[in-house]
Amino acid sequence: MINNNPQDPLAELITTYNELNSSVIEALHEEPSPLEFMRFVARNTPFVIRGGASNWKATQTWSPAYLSEHLGDEPVNVAVTPLGYVLSNADSPTLYEDGTLVFAKPWEESQPFTEFLNYIIQQEKDPSSLQGEVHYAQTQNDNLRDEYASLFNHVQPDISFARIALQQKSPDAINLWIGNSQSTTALHKDNYENIYVQILGKKHFVLLPPHCRPCVNEKLLRPASYKRVVNDDDDPSPLLLSETTGHVLSKLKLELDKIEEASESGHGENSGLVPFATWDPEDDGPSGDYATPYSKLAQPVKVTLEPGDMLYLPAMWYHKVSQSCNPEEGICVAVNYWYDMEFAGPLYPFSAFVRSVYESQQHK
Amino acid sequence: MINNNPQDPLAELITTYNELNSSVIEALHEEPSPLEFMRFVARNTPFVIRGGASNWKATQTWSPAYLSEHLGDEPVNVAVTPLGYVLSNADSPTLYEDGTLVFAKPWEESQPFTEFLNYIIQQEKDPSSLQGEVHYAQTQNDNLRDEYASLFNHVQPDISFARIALQQKSPDAINLWIGNSQSTTALHKDNYENIYVQILGKKHFVLLPPHCRPCVNEKLLRPASYKRVVNDDDDPSPLLLSETTGHVLSKLKLELDKIEEASESGHGENSGLVPFATWDPEDDGPSGDYATPYSKLAQPVKVTLEPGDMLYLPAMWYHKVSQSCNPEEGICVAVNYWYDMEFAGPLYPFSAFVRSVYESQQHK
Repeated sequence: MINNNPQDPLAELITTYNELNSSVIEALHEEPSPLEFMRFVARNTPFVIRGGASNWKATQTWSPAYLSEHLGDEPVNVAVTPLGYVLSNADSPTLYEDGTLVFAKPWEESQPFTEFLNYIIQQEKDPSSLQGEVHYAQTQNDNLRDEYASLFNHVQPDISFARIALQQKSPDAINLWIGNSQSTTALHKDNYENIYVQILGKKHFVLLPPHCRPCVNEKLLRPASYKRVVNDDDDPSPLLLSETTGHVLSKLKLELDKIEEASESGHGENSGLVPFATWDPEDDGPSGDYATPYSKLAQPVKVTLEPGDMLYLPAMWYHKVSQSCNPEEGICVAVNYWYDMEFAGPLYPFSAFVRSVYESQQHK
Repeated sequence: MINNNPQDPLAELITTYNELNSSVIEALHEEPSPLEFMRFVARNTPFVIRGGASNWKATQTWSPAYLSEHLGDEPVNVAVTPLGYVLSNADSPTLYEDGTLVFAKPWEESQPFTEFLNYIIQQEKDPSSLQGEVHYAQTQNDNLRDEYASLFNHVQPDISFARIALQQKSPDAINLWIGNSQSTTALHKDNYENIYVQILGKKHFVLLPPHCRPCVNEKLLRPASYKRVVNDDDDPSPLLLSETTGHVLSKLKLELDKIEEASESGHGENSGLVPFATWDPEDDGPSGDYATPYSKLAQPVKVTLEPGDMLYLPAMWYHKVSQSCNPEEGICVAVNYWYDMEFAGPLYPFSAFVRSVYESQQHK
């Protein structure tokens, strides 16, 4: 419920910020100096560097053929989710069979790289030709210095302006993302300063500043995980069906995670429940159900990264990410660098404060 | 009244900030680079540079004799307030004769510089020898590039690390402060990034971050001004008397400013009333009356500037300032540089939000 005060402090906060900040992202055409970067960090404001990584070896040489040849049949971790059933794929709010919203985690499996790559390319060229699954290499566990280490010297080992400004020897994680236009990431935020580099295809970001917490309708969701069903006949539980044709779309089944009984009655961090945004800032349709009275006040920053572009995504900003492929390539590839954020100063306590004001208002 | 929620968001904000930030100020021993400075700006965190201005001409040459010789009988603007009657002098909350707290502004008059200087030195050496008035040159109107322009080339024209980091051609104001140990400045905040440089004597700062708004008990006060009473016999209104002896302490009289009738019933910015902190973070005694339930949560940062020290006082931080003199000099002299603050980003909307949450809570 919206605050009944003539001046609602949360509404005032969002509108004051909007008046003082542009929702059009600033575009640079070369890397900032560490000092110039630090000014953006101080303002907790995103920017894009058009062509900032256009001379990287990755940007200049990677293609499906090159990657296939380079990685061959090396096993890679692939996140698997059903196609066309949810707005987002892995790690996203999803309707469970009992009609409640749960936090759905992907099925993860190891696939030979070439098999993974061929699947996503073929799906991109002809979605109907394949089993209804989205495959996305997106482990976010520093995979470019681990699983894909043989590709690591094709990118910069760090982003020098960020390393110097933030005084960090090395990024906390460097992640490689390989998927196609079916791969999207639901609105969420991370406690990291984030530099995103597009290598192949385009990434479409929708960004909201940290104080937009009252707009995103964060809920505590039961965690659930997709499981690959091995033998249909032995498993009587319903499979995912196409809403239009009723055909079996996937052999994936969503199962609730076991939550320890002791904590089941708990709340918040100890309950095993996952706090997650449920509002989709791009959806005026059915998921508008998840809008709060504050959602309409949000002024998202939208930016599309082309190959070679770099994005500074400031700490604690909400981001929803979707992508589109060059038809000749059929894949989207990106790399991101996570640097530890500063917990001293106003940003972190401020964001926690907005959250607790909003929550205390909900409980009235 | 304090919020009755089990988790009071305002109390949580103050304690979370305290857990993540030290109340001991960081001390540097040389000027930071613009990038190092920008890291402090980003954290909105003060620091002191011990001896940062020790090689300035002002620090090396100024003394009462030097200033007296240099400025002679040039007229200077002096703020005049009664001695020993209020905790702070100019621009401070003061009890009016009707028992209400008002915002007292000083009587301002022009005095020949040498006369002004001799007064404050003699008072410092023997307070009882003089009429009960505090004299303070503190106009805060860029007086070092105007009234005291002949001294301007004794200090740096700007603070280079701040000019470069904040991308400003020149400070918005450079102010000279000359007083003695009777001159104090009540707790308040400014919308400026502030660099303070101590030249003679010591300055004692008590600092509170911007989100401590709920601790300082800001009230809307009627503005009042001290007037010098020319002829006692013609003016029947009460003079300021010593609380102990009953003697006339000063020929100054506090008069309420005229507020236009149309706005008298108004509130806030248009009412003519002055919003001002009434809590004194150093006073455990009677002025403890002005503590709020949040005041005890505040962890003030305390720092004393010696001659040649520089303080970075971040934008919107509350500061109370008192001073003490070297007995051989009998005066305190400082210079401060105001740079425009950044209104984009989280700091300004955040501070306004804390204020409106606190106020909306008061109205319940």
